[in-house]
Amino acid sequence: KHIPFRLPYLDDETTLKNSQLFYEEMKMRRSVRAFSSRAVPMKVIQNLIKTAGTAPSVGNLQPWRFCVILNDGLKLMIREVLEAAERDNYVARKKGAAWVVDVSQLQDTWRRPYITDAPSLLVVCHEVFAEMNEKKERLYGYNHDSTAISVGILLAAIQNVGLSTVVTSPLNVGPDISRLLRRPESESVLLLLPLGYAAEDVTVPDLKRKPVEFITKLY
Amino acid sequence: KHIPFRLPYLDDETTLKNSQLFYEEMKMRRSVRAFSSRAVPMKVIQNLIKTAGTAPSVGNLQPWRFCVILNDGLKLMIREVLEAAERDNYVARKKGAAWVVDVSQLQDTWRRPYITDAPSLLVVCHEVFAEMNEKKERLYGYNHDSTAISVGILLAAIQNVGLSTVVTSPLNVGPDISRLLRRPESESVLLLLPLGYAAEDVTVPDLKRKPVEFITKLY
Ligand SMILES: Cc1cc2nc3c(=O)[nH]c(=O)nc-3n(C[C@H](O)[C@H](O)[C@H](O)COP(=O)(O)O)c2cc1C
Ligand SMILES: Cc1cc2nc3c(=O)[nH]c(=O)nc-3n(C[C@H](O)[C@H](O)[C@H](O)COP(=O)(O)O)c2cc1C
Repeated sequence: KHIPFRLPYLDDETTLKNSQLFYEEMKMRRSVRAFSSRAVPMKVIQNLIKTAGTAPSVGNLQPWRFCVILNDGLKLMIREVLEAAERDNYVARKKGAAWVVDVSQLQDTWRRPYITDAPSLLVVCHEVFAEMNEKKERLYGYNHDSTAISVGILLAAIQNVGLSTVVTSPLNVGPDISRLLRRPESESVLLLLPLGYAAEDVTVPDLKRKPVEFITKLY
Repeated sequence: KHIPFRLPYLDDETTLKNSQLFYEEMKMRRSVRAFSSRAVPMKVIQNLIKTAGTAPSVGNLQPWRFCVILNDGLKLMIREVLEAAERDNYVARKKGAAWVVDVSQLQDTWRRPYITDAPSLLVVCHEVFAEMNEKKERLYGYNHDSTAISVGILLAAIQNVGLSTVVTSPLNVGPDISRLLRRPESESVLLLLPLGYAAEDVTVPDLKRKPVEFITKLY
């Protein structure tokens, strides 16, 4: 069954202005690694997740699962597991190991206090398998991609309401975090997003974004 | 060097209202596979790409490259390469091959007219390597993830201005498309996004989104 689809008509001038305003809003986003204790209303978190859930997905599988962790004990356990992995990286990096790439490059410590300091922690998981043609097919790559795209939409929604996060890699402890959360075997941890308001006195590294001419290729 | 970071303060009520409005806007997004010929101003495309370029990325590598294809001959060549791959899938699926998964499930044809019909076609690539510790490191997975996240932000920006797209997998012909575009060996094609206004009489499959309770797990 198909249904009609139409978006409101906007003239070119309005479209241009809107595209500019949205850019300016998103441009203000930065990864934040220190949070205020100001609570985030549960209904806001729910709207953010609903927004992420509007993402496209391969085969409309909607493979994303958003774990919202408010429990302090659980946040601490996740932080400890992650910090142990970060610490291994950190030590290896100090020894000059080439495989310790950029995840830690911008941070000169293995400590991840923001995992517990943010009032809530989102652990984004995705289904690894999919019921297809009455068989379970391993769809790791596709579901992974769909879920990363939904995280992009989630980030836009977070920025839109003035909240902050730092997309955080689970490194090699995704399976441990999954076990702590008692997620089923069919799910995999993609990313961790501490969610809250930026601490009042927070600073961020003075990074530059590449000019649009550099990231655009015209044909 | 670090710099201060602050977003405007919004009270809880405003935050809740904004999160609701943004959800309602993103909720209207659907994948569109038939486009009007109405042109998209180049400045709008540029703002969309600038917005995608605000995405976070592992190590701030900003690995995304957005190829904007306006040339009809090139669009046709890409369409032909993609349709050949889709056709193989389609034929295999008719024969009942289990590996022909969901990419085609919602379409009962291997034809991809929207690749040439949309006034512009974005081919999203990413750097596969990265200069790290004065060595070239293969960072496929990380750069892939960062770029998928930037596509999510791009989709939010596209929806925000009333344009449409359908995220399209390059299947196994990414390398062929890359060659057609003379992209360097260090880049890989992630996704194709035809960009334009939805055709006036377009219809979309009547799909349902999973309820927020299903995709949210509270801890
Ligand atoms: C990574 C990715 C790849 C996709 N590839 C294709 C594709 O090759 N062809 C297609 O018609 N749709 C493709 N889609 C779109 C999905 O079919 C679509 O998002 C899904 O059916 C849900 O519909 P909606 O986007 O209208 O909500 C893809 C989506 C994603 C996220
Ligand atoms: C997939 C992904 C994983 C990331 N993992 C980490 C991480 O483990 N720790 C961290 O501090 N930052 C992480 N980041 C954030 C980046 O370091 C940050 O986006 C980059 O430095 C650019 O800064 P900005 O987000 O403020 O623009 C990650 C970003 C992405 C996209």
